[in-house]
Amino acid sequence: MTTGSQQALGLVAAVRLDRTDAVLVANPSYLAALQCFGFAGARLVAVPRDAEGLDPEALPALIAEHAPKFLYVVPTFQNPTGRTLPAARRARLAQIAAEHGLWIVEDDPYAELRYDGEPLAPIGAQPGAADRTITISSLSKVLAPGMRIGWLRAPEPILRPLVIAKQAADLHSSTVDQLAARASLQDGDLDTHIDGLRAEYRRRRDALLDGLAAALPAGSAFNRPDGGMFVRARLPPGWDAEALLRSALEYDVAFVPCLPFFAQEPDERTLRLSFTTHRPAEIAEGLARLGRAAAQP
Amino acid sequence: MTTGSQQALGLVAAVRLDRTDAVLVANPSYLAALQCFGFAGARLVAVPRDAEGLDPEALPALIAEHAPKFLYVVPTFQNPTGRTLPAARRARLAQIAAEHGLWIVEDDPYAELRYDGEPLAPIGAQPGAADRTITISSLSKVLAPGMRIGWLRAPEPILRPLVIAKQAADLHSSTVDQLAARASLQDGDLDTHIDGLRAEYRRRRDALLDGLAAALPAGSAFNRPDGGMFVRARLPPGWDAEALLRSALEYDVAFVPCLPFFAQEPDERTLRLSFTTHRPAEIAEGLARLGRAAAQP
Repeated sequence: MTTGSQQALGLVAAVRLDRTDAVLVANPSYLAALQCFGFAGARLVAVPRDAEGLDPEALPALIAEHAPKFLYVVPTFQNPTGRTLPAARRARLAQIAAEHGLWIVEDDPYAELRYDGEPLAPIGAQPGAADRTITISSLSKVLAPGMRIGWLRAPEPILRPLVIAKQAADLHSSTVDQLAARASLQDGDLDTHIDGLRAEYRRRRDALLDGLAAALPAGSAFNRPDGGMFVRARLPPGWDAEALLRSALEYDVAFVPCLPFFAQEPDERTLRLSFTTHRPAEIAEGLARLGRAAAQP
Repeated sequence: MTTGSQQALGLVAAVRLDRTDAVLVANPSYLAALQCFGFAGARLVAVPRDAEGLDPEALPALIAEHAPKFLYVVPTFQNPTGRTLPAARRARLAQIAAEHGLWIVEDDPYAELRYDGEPLAPIGAQPGAADRTITISSLSKVLAPGMRIGWLRAPEPILRPLVIAKQAADLHSSTVDQLAARASLQDGDLDTHIDGLRAEYRRRRDALLDGLAAALPAGSAFNRPDGGMFVRARLPPGWDAEALLRSALEYDVAFVPCLPFFAQEPDERTLRLSFTTHRPAEIAEGLARLGRAAAQP
């Protein structure tokens, strides 16, 4: 039990990373994970990707060159791209990890928020991966983010140092939160609650996708995620997401430029749009404002 | 706002300490602070003490030799000794810190639990200390330990990196706990609550002190703290607190040997006795069992 899944990332960094150690990451990756590993002094090495996502075949050469302590991956509805690593890639990744002694930190908080398609087994459940994968998740996305209840599952040999790091970090996670979570899980029906989230978030995702092409500058591209909280868009050549954000703020609408999420070779044309917080009508209004901002001379 | 004061120690370590940095500490010191600094790779250097506690006059030579990043001190009703640094020492410590550019981390969670004597101003409130002291405290000892609400106060220039470290550690402290704390502080009367704690804990301390001489082996010594949660005892020559603990456990009573609280020159004859958890009658029973354990051949 961790104080949110963010703490789990910090514990992994405290136990596994020394200064100058390498960590393999998708590019872009969840910003606060990069910060966490960076605080520990690690070098972040981006794994090449193609249209299917992170390329497992690139790993052996990176492992040989950098001797990374682990690969950090958000396999499902990733932050900031919304992308999901396909089943075949998960299996291949696990196979290569086992062959080359690579550890995997699998951060999977969004998997339950699936609106289309079938669930995929996590990387840690692939053959060969269980004894080299640390799995991290959270109640934040499915129950309440203010209740700081996350967790990690790790192979036995590294569980004990992780527990000691946890005690040094905050002695224990809030008893109040743990009792509230227990009450919710015992008395509430989490599956029904998540069904409700799925139905509503699907509507919100569709509202964003329906209006996005009209709001973004002509020639922009964006993905259509099967779940999660984020759509990633890419502006046409010559555009800069941070400059567009400054214009957007004048219209009281905002998005997140992806620039700080890149460990290497930042792409200043990419941005992240969240769709879970606002109702469809608000999303339509936000898109209308974004369209006006993008149409500014 | 931190997730308990334990997190504040971790944040200070993250922001201020690099591997091989020195930290000055009282000897013995709060174990989980030593662990926290040790995790960051710091070298722990014990400050000499006399009957009044930590000796400020020893600091200039230690500062010259070790260039410590800070002095860590629990000035009031210290864990594990129950001792309090007198007013004159606090003023002198602040003066020397200012003269020699020493930073102070003042961890003061027990000060409100005073049963005798007058409150002392914290070190951070002494002339010259405000801009070089990080003050840490908590609601754990005065309201509820399960509610993870601690805090730190730091000079402006290092507050920003501390906030970033806090975000990397757990994004934010539990909203549930913060709302519960706000409700308690607004609707409850914390002063009256603490008055009640003081009255009851005074009785418990006195119950421990009244029976302790009879329970410990002849020739033992112990202090009489004006507050807090702990009494420190020292066994006569030839005794070992960890061996006595093993005997005590056979009688279903326990205490904490101080050995792991020492940064240097551990004293295996010292032990910590807590008196706040149990009622006077339970303390009397515990002491009777301890007496039987100590009388064992």
